[in-house]
Amino acid sequence: MNSNQTMKTLQIIRAEHAELVDVPIPEPGPGEALVRVMEVATCPQWDLHIYYGKPMFAYEQAVPFPYSPGQPGHEMAGIVAKAGPDCTLQEGQKVAAWRDAGHHRAGCYAQYVVMKQDNLLALPDELPFRKAVSLELGMCVAASILKLKQSAGIRGRRCGVNGLGPAGLIAVQMLLAEGAAEVIGLDPNPQRRELALRLGASLCVEPDSAEIAKRGKPGALEIAIDCVGYPQAVRNIMDRTNEAVALFAVQRDDYVIHHQGLSVIGYPGHFREAAEYALELVVAGKLDFEPLISCELPLAEYSKGVQLLKMQEAIKICFIPEQ
Amino acid sequence: MNSNQTMKTLQIIRAEHAELVDVPIPEPGPGEALVRVMEVATCPQWDLHIYYGKPMFAYEQAVPFPYSPGQPGHEMAGIVAKAGPDCTLQEGQKVAAWRDAGHHRAGCYAQYVVMKQDNLLALPDELPFRKAVSLELGMCVAASILKLKQSAGIRGRRCGVNGLGPAGLIAVQMLLAEGAAEVIGLDPNPQRRELALRLGASLCVEPDSAEIAKRGKPGALEIAIDCVGYPQAVRNIMDRTNEAVALFAVQRDDYVIHHQGLSVIGYPGHFREAAEYALELVVAGKLDFEPLISCELPLAEYSKGVQLLKMQEAIKICFIPEQ
Repeated sequence: MNSNQTMKTLQIIRAEHAELVDVPIPEPGPGEALVRVMEVATCPQWDLHIYYGKPMFAYEQAVPFPYSPGQPGHEMAGIVAKAGPDCTLQEGQKVAAWRDAGHHRAGCYAQYVVMKQDNLLALPDELPFRKAVSLELGMCVAASILKLKQSAGIRGRRCGVNGLGPAGLIAVQMLLAEGAAEVIGLDPNPQRRELALRLGASLCVEPDSAEIAKRGKPGALEIAIDCVGYPQAVRNIMDRTNEAVALFAVQRDDYVIHHQGLSVIGYPGHFREAAEYALELVVAGKLDFEPLISCELPLAEYSKGVQLLKMQEAIKICFIPEQ
Repeated sequence: MNSNQTMKTLQIIRAEHAELVDVPIPEPGPGEALVRVMEVATCPQWDLHIYYGKPMFAYEQAVPFPYSPGQPGHEMAGIVAKAGPDCTLQEGQKVAAWRDAGHHRAGCYAQYVVMKQDNLLALPDELPFRKAVSLELGMCVAASILKLKQSAGIRGRRCGVNGLGPAGLIAVQMLLAEGAAEVIGLDPNPQRRELALRLGASLCVEPDSAEIAKRGKPGALEIAIDCVGYPQAVRNIMDRTNEAVALFAVQRDDYVIHHQGLSVIGYPGHFREAAEYALELVVAGKLDFEPLISCELPLAEYSKGVQLLKMQEAIKICFIPEQ
């Protein structure tokens, strides 16, 4: 491979308009690897916000278009194509991204991407890419789960998962892996409740279901993780949980603490041990991203994929850049 | 001692009116001990609420007068005068109350009190009563401190204590005992800041002092415990703390979570291990209730004592029932 070669990369030019563009295959710098992207999964939060031109965080004014090439793709599994200086990864090594390096850099919706070695974890040769493609989201959820485990304990507890999107479906699997006595999913979408049950949830209900008692009553949850983020949804799960609610979802408004004695576990941020923990669960067969992938599309059909996410007709979409 | 003997007990007959009354010395039942009360300390929250006829918790309608004899006294150290059936404490054993059995029972503002053995901890013979009199409050604060330690860690951290009343002054000592790098007290009262400094606090400031930076800035607190409870005071400490705020004070209004990533540690409730932990610190010389006792009064001067608390001219008052 030489620097004259080009590759296809996705670029969101303006709101609701994405194109495949040809750009030179980049060169890895010190401590970096060039990775051939085999699979890259959507992160609905990011994809929907950026594609529709809505800032992800309250403090942002606007989405800067044209957006960085390859962004917001960051859930990626691939093969090391070239190691830069001081990069100890071998060519041909299977890897997955565990951390997004920031949207000022070219992203993973491309045939190749340059990643810092520090942001990659090596995958066992026998592990299919599909099993590890959403390792980055696995790390994100693991950070909350590990904090909840530390703060309140998970083994033997009656646990709630508020919202059964990609993060919630990962949380269900992690709580089960940690020995939760019961994992109860709350989501208005019946297909998502069905999927959570297939992944091992004990019970899945509408968010306002009387099957989960109010806090302090028999049948309330002991601990829970919120993967929704809207204040009224957070309040609903707080109203049904006795001990601790971990806040995973991005917070856009103030939340109200109404109940004395309830702990609210803030998001602790991203860290490598959480990614290693998620990968261990994947390798042990206790965490599987494959059921979250509703369909596979070529990168050229990105806009169609975002539509499916918007209509909640897909949980995640896996793009194959080489198709 | 026989059942014909009488003792003095305090009774709050109506708002702002307390009397010493003569009642029979009670008999301990199964699993109970009759304790000769050597010292009993105020708990300003309870004393001020009950004496002035204000319910302690939002869900209560009114204070039921005349109040139970001996109540709200519950921070007590004394000597076992008589063991009831199945009570394994020996006569003459020094004890302290670690848990309030409820205000339907006769309380500790009396020459004698019947306590469940389960609510007493035996004290070493050589420990002065004054060193252990507020063990019950020590247990209350320890419950929050131990939860904060579990959830976020204390050793090496920059810690805040919001409010330097009795609980805050105990929290300062416990955080230091746990190896906090810095313990910073916030209180508008200069005498209380002075006392916290004498107890080892690194710095004590007005609550709105610029000496403690806003969250996310250099010089912010890492963890904190709130011993105030008013929403604006809780918000103030949340605004200056990066990682976790433990809520010790009784919550009377909703609190607002404005900051993503901040954990709010709810009060975990009372438990015996927290009392044993507090007593261990007392015995090791790392926790001392004596500096919190501003003055000693006979029980007959209870009303004067409550006045001193109200004017913030005393932190705690120690009553001597035999005087």
